[in-house]
Amino acid sequence: MGLFVPAKGEPAFVVPAMNAPQARQTPLGVSVVKGWEDQNGWHTDAVELVEGFGVGSGGKVFVDDELLSVHLLGLQGLFPSAQFAPAGDLMASLRQNKTQAEIAHMDEAARLIDSVFQECLGVIKEGITELDLAEFVLEATRKRGSAPSFSPLICFGENCALPHHHTGKRQLKHGDTVIIDIGCLSEHYASDITRTVCFGTPKDPDVQKVYGIVYNAHWSARNHARPGVSCESVDHAAREVITQAGYGEAFVHRTGHGIGISTHEPPYIVAGNSLLLEQGMCFSVEPGIYLGGRFGVRIENIVTVTESGVRSVNAEAPQEIIVL
Amino acid sequence: MGLFVPAKGEPAFVVPAMNAPQARQTPLGVSVVKGWEDQNGWHTDAVELVEGFGVGSGGKVFVDDELLSVHLLGLQGLFPSAQFAPAGDLMASLRQNKTQAEIAHMDEAARLIDSVFQECLGVIKEGITELDLAEFVLEATRKRGSAPSFSPLICFGENCALPHHHTGKRQLKHGDTVIIDIGCLSEHYASDITRTVCFGTPKDPDVQKVYGIVYNAHWSARNHARPGVSCESVDHAAREVITQAGYGEAFVHRTGHGIGISTHEPPYIVAGNSLLLEQGMCFSVEPGIYLGGRFGVRIENIVTVTESGVRSVNAEAPQEIIVL
Repeated sequence: MGLFVPAKGEPAFVVPAMNAPQARQTPLGVSVVKGWEDQNGWHTDAVELVEGFGVGSGGKVFVDDELLSVHLLGLQGLFPSAQFAPAGDLMASLRQNKTQAEIAHMDEAARLIDSVFQECLGVIKEGITELDLAEFVLEATRKRGSAPSFSPLICFGENCALPHHHTGKRQLKHGDTVIIDIGCLSEHYASDITRTVCFGTPKDPDVQKVYGIVYNAHWSARNHARPGVSCESVDHAAREVITQAGYGEAFVHRTGHGIGISTHEPPYIVAGNSLLLEQGMCFSVEPGIYLGGRFGVRIENIVTVTESGVRSVNAEAPQEIIVL
Repeated sequence: MGLFVPAKGEPAFVVPAMNAPQARQTPLGVSVVKGWEDQNGWHTDAVELVEGFGVGSGGKVFVDDELLSVHLLGLQGLFPSAQFAPAGDLMASLRQNKTQAEIAHMDEAARLIDSVFQECLGVIKEGITELDLAEFVLEATRKRGSAPSFSPLICFGENCALPHHHTGKRQLKHGDTVIIDIGCLSEHYASDITRTVCFGTPKDPDVQKVYGIVYNAHWSARNHARPGVSCESVDHAAREVITQAGYGEAFVHRTGHGIGISTHEPPYIVAGNSLLLEQGMCFSVEPGIYLGGRFGVRIENIVTVTESGVRSVNAEAPQEIIVL
């Protein structure tokens, strides 16, 4: 199913014939719908449409960043003299500055996931597995009429040192840190929070100290962010706190990512991104420290840029690590 | 995260630096792992690797069909004189003939989803919504230690006439047909079944007759399929039964799709596909009749091609529609 949008004129859907009735009824209000039959495929309709758009030799075609390559290669074969480019930057400029209505959905998605996190705290018991807790998160999300925005990322103990750990069968032991990185949807808009807690007195003597450093890094980034400051400087504000404390090598990822209809979208809060923040942008602030074989800490809230700073859509993480 | 495989020599992962330790430990046993930092991105490593592979001017690069276009466009920019082509056909020839071990996983995934379907029958009650039943399917799937291979597609009454209906808030009424199209995973291999049942005596007088036609079409395709016959002739065997019965226009989709690690993969059982079946291929047989505004019927099993015919991995659908 493809949506073809000319610079001027009417956009059109190209869909399997059996989906044509549904395509005519989408809230997008696209009235031109071409249904293709299995034996012909979509190429004929696409050629007719794009030629009708007047994309001549050297004409430019922007394609969705996430279009499957097999389809892009098909289009390139049909229009060998056209120039193809990713639409991501174009779409980012349309999507990264949210309206009040969009931010209201972000707020609601955040409210839902904050309450899921609170409910999680009640089921963290010795012997449960990461997958058990992930399962509980999914059920709690659905009970609220929502759906996950990504698979719950749950880490116990030494697995907390892997920022992209695969949630698995590790059982919870007394003294383990627990990372809960979860999100859900409200009207297609995503939430995403991370909290680090401890099950009983931390086994590792550095847990509280490291939590405090990550907490300070989180707030350093948030206190720095406002309209007109660059994304990279927000990353730097968090990173500097962690580097000063001697853990620079252990903060192995960027400080944050934009979020909205996609869980990861511009603006990216990362070294090298000189983009200046503007009111209405929404992004994560999620510094972390990862100590291989021992534990890890990450604290993530989603913030939205206001007139004079940023506001968190999530409830705040406590200044000291929660010990359950 | 990218996997680069040369025609000769060692394959390599190109991954964010923080994921490099995990990439070194995958069961794939890829020993060359290049970790890229946020400020540089992946382009430098990719250029170095692909040049090392000796892809010169006019060299050929196959890319995964599902690679995101933004990455393909990046690669095309880095290697403007290389020829890019989709890897789908190449991968299909590697994937579509399953080994006995793979078929054992298909059997297990089928056994699980068959038992989920049986459990569903117990919760179909007046007033439940399509989403309620979808939710039940997801929970029943997880209780079995499995995960869905796609979102459950549940249709009540007139929604059964839309083969790609969006499962929604329609409440079940006495006399409605119910389409349950569900699947799950076992060791990454997917199952996919569709059953049509009726809640109470069918409201529409043609339900039983149409069910019988679809049932006969399903078996006509299965009785025809064996090594050496073409995919399109299997589609035709199902279609002919429905056309002869006067409902040809209402069978709006192909008869089936291959299935394995992907829920939809070659071989496609569709007009125009002259590919000959071979032992070990696995595909769906799922004819349907869709009567707009009234109801629809689809019966889908997954079959695997044996030495002399096909064997269903699913339990069989009954010859007459189940009336609950």
